[in-house]
Amino acid sequence: MASHQKNVGILAMEIYFPPTCIRQEVLEAHDGASKGKYTIGLGQDCMAFCTEVEDVISMSLTAVTSLLEKYGVDPKQIGRLEVGSETVIDKSKSIKTFLMQIFEVYAEGPARPTGGAAAIAMLIGPDAPIAFESKFRGSHMSHAYDFYKPNLASEYPVVDGKLSQTCYLMALDSCYTRFCQKYGKLEGKQFSIDDADYFVFHSPYNKLVQKSFARLWFDDFLRNASSVDEAAKQKLAPFSTLTGDESYQSRDLEKAAQQVSKPSYDAKVVPATLIPKQVGNMYTASIYAAFASLIHNKHNSLAGQRVLMFSYGSGLAATMFSFRLRGGQLPFSLSNIANVMNVGEKLKSRHEFPPEKFVETMKLMEHMYGGKDFVTSKDCSLLAPGTYYLTEVDSMYRRFYAKKAGANTTSIACENGSHANGH
Amino acid sequence: MASHQKNVGILAMEIYFPPTCIRQEVLEAHDGASKGKYTIGLGQDCMAFCTEVEDVISMSLTAVTSLLEKYGVDPKQIGRLEVGSETVIDKSKSIKTFLMQIFEVYAEGPARPTGGAAAIAMLIGPDAPIAFESKFRGSHMSHAYDFYKPNLASEYPVVDGKLSQTCYLMALDSCYTRFCQKYGKLEGKQFSIDDADYFVFHSPYNKLVQKSFARLWFDDFLRNASSVDEAAKQKLAPFSTLTGDESYQSRDLEKAAQQVSKPSYDAKVVPATLIPKQVGNMYTASIYAAFASLIHNKHNSLAGQRVLMFSYGSGLAATMFSFRLRGGQLPFSLSNIANVMNVGEKLKSRHEFPPEKFVETMKLMEHMYGGKDFVTSKDCSLLAPGTYYLTEVDSMYRRFYAKKAGANTTSIACENGSHANGH
Repeated sequence: MASHQKNVGILAMEIYFPPTCIRQEVLEAHDGASKGKYTIGLGQDCMAFCTEVEDVISMSLTAVTSLLEKYGVDPKQIGRLEVGSETVIDKSKSIKTFLMQIFEVYAEGPARPTGGAAAIAMLIGPDAPIAFESKFRGSHMSHAYDFYKPNLASEYPVVDGKLSQTCYLMALDSCYTRFCQKYGKLEGKQFSIDDADYFVFHSPYNKLVQKSFARLWFDDFLRNASSVDEAAKQKLAPFSTLTGDESYQSRDLEKAAQQVSKPSYDAKVVPATLIPKQVGNMYTASIYAAFASLIHNKHNSLAGQRVLMFSYGSGLAATMFSFRLRGGQLPFSLSNIANVMNVGEKLKSRHEFPPEKFVETMKLMEHMYGGKDFVTSKDCSLLAPGTYYLTEVDSMYRRFYAKKAGANTTSIACENGSHANGH
Repeated sequence: MASHQKNVGILAMEIYFPPTCIRQEVLEAHDGASKGKYTIGLGQDCMAFCTEVEDVISMSLTAVTSLLEKYGVDPKQIGRLEVGSETVIDKSKSIKTFLMQIFEVYAEGPARPTGGAAAIAMLIGPDAPIAFESKFRGSHMSHAYDFYKPNLASEYPVVDGKLSQTCYLMALDSCYTRFCQKYGKLEGKQFSIDDADYFVFHSPYNKLVQKSFARLWFDDFLRNASSVDEAAKQKLAPFSTLTGDESYQSRDLEKAAQQVSKPSYDAKVVPATLIPKQVGNMYTASIYAAFASLIHNKHNSLAGQRVLMFSYGSGLAATMFSFRLRGGQLPFSLSNIANVMNVGEKLKSRHEFPPEKFVETMKLMEHMYGGKDFVTSKDCSLLAPGTYYLTEVDSMYRRFYAKKAGANTTSIACENGSHANGH
């Protein structure tokens, strides 16, 4: 059957991020950091965060529900549900089992339209406007302690920032080499940056994306690829004798490569940086949030274009792959995907918290993390209609969610989940 | 490509369980439980446990290494590594990234033969002696709090035993119904218990396996399947009017169905119960440990036979699927798989702990769980040659492992993992 399916890829997307955020410039000042440390040093504009009424489960519920409703997809048409997350709420019970509620609820009645959104939900299938070119995929895995969460009772990770950046760039090089090898073998010509129209990166912070794209230029230079002109070659020549390790540490190379790649970065990368810069690190969702930015910015001109994707997870596992885009047919068209995601409006309608209130919220969240036997404020005044939110964690740690009502939706309490319904 | 591959399934298996265990009869007495509570009530004989030198990572390292070595598989031939586990050591860094060490180590030199074994490792590919009949697969998912681990700092789960059993049996019914529907549609005849030679269950404790097989008999009775003879029909008839809920709660039905199914249970299920009864609940590995028992007991007579598999994970997700077995070609033959797994010898060479020492070990493990900045005893005297073991968790929570030397292997310290090697 698989061999008859063409253009398998992303048919539909929905994105959700919390409506609560703090501006990096404000946070910078509040933290007593030097001016520009977060906004230029990290390249970030804003950071979204969950308040006590949202978590990974509520955001997933919101995104999946919204995708099904807005594209008119019957849950019964879904053959497989894959959930990716870096966040652990329970060490045994999976997020997927919470999402099954959606399929059960819908199975019992007609889909109810809502106006909300959540994390990233994607529908995968044939005849997609965003088609995988899977033959070129290049992967890299290694055992590293660059970012990890060994303290099971804490929300916070252990991070070795410098190591993490080096690991990321090494994985990028390795994946790019493999991608180029496969491309060369299958297409009979050398791949270069010129052969992709856009580049989308896993984006923990924007500065790393800038460095990564510059690194690909340096790689193309070392490969003597056609994308690198004479002027660029001259600027990069002094670094051609660096060892691999030296090249990851050289600030001069970093600067030269960023300078050389700047016009190309503005054209091929910037359109895919909006949401990561505005929302912050989304971990598993990061690369698709970057991709959603590209759809948002360029949906009218993407047909026929190739997008190179670089996915990275600390620990570490990375893959470079590519999409070939097509206009698509309603409801699964690029313009409708942009329309459904409605990124501009979602960003605009956010609520900026002052730093004191942000810090207070984080303290409350730390206190609640892993806790039981409490009810939340149930204050969903900042949430869009149709958004799921946490109402209670009972004495048995069972989590209860409700859905905020809206113009076209009714407020509902979720299944309490204490009993399987035998579907 | 997929369409050209035939008999995709399990080519090779290896199983590892810790060499340390306690007999249920001894534990029963020590706990002051009534005689037979664990051995008959749960149907369990023995329970394996990790001491401070073993964990989910060391066992995975041992199993995967051993599989590659004993079947002579070059790590470079492996296209994809899938890891399934219910155990969380780190909330972000995956077990898979630890296992990548194996592939890196091997990539650097010739494979070094060892004599050890770990958890369950399986090699999947075409022309397999254990081939999936994937067209009949029946799945069931639901949102339930039957068994979960919400306390992130604790090793122990929250379990609702009664609910968990009901969830399990409901999922079994649902999966069996779907499996039978697909079989009927594709084969043009009704499926019954007679159409499979063996039944393998996810086995948290043996008693549940007994109840499950009895439940399938009751299902066949309700479906008026050919497997149920007149005598059995008479015994089950009084329960034909029970509602679904009532049928899950009825002890009388449970007894009658177990009685009716007993000869069939002895023939079709018992051969797949050895390891789960001897080792205990292995969570993700449980169903394949049960299946390994079948290979161990019956490898000479399995060619041409069908094995029905029931997989279950609390929370919950369940699938029923089937294998069609063939003799296979060396090294990927049923008899060689039995030979490599060497289950009889592994069970025989275990060390039974007295209850006091067992309790002491568990206390030590609780104390160490989630801890950092310690070295273990490095006492690997009870471990088989080639077994990986934990030596240290440093102040940054980084975990270090070593491999016990043996006749054909050299003792090595593992990569410390603090630096990616850029493969």
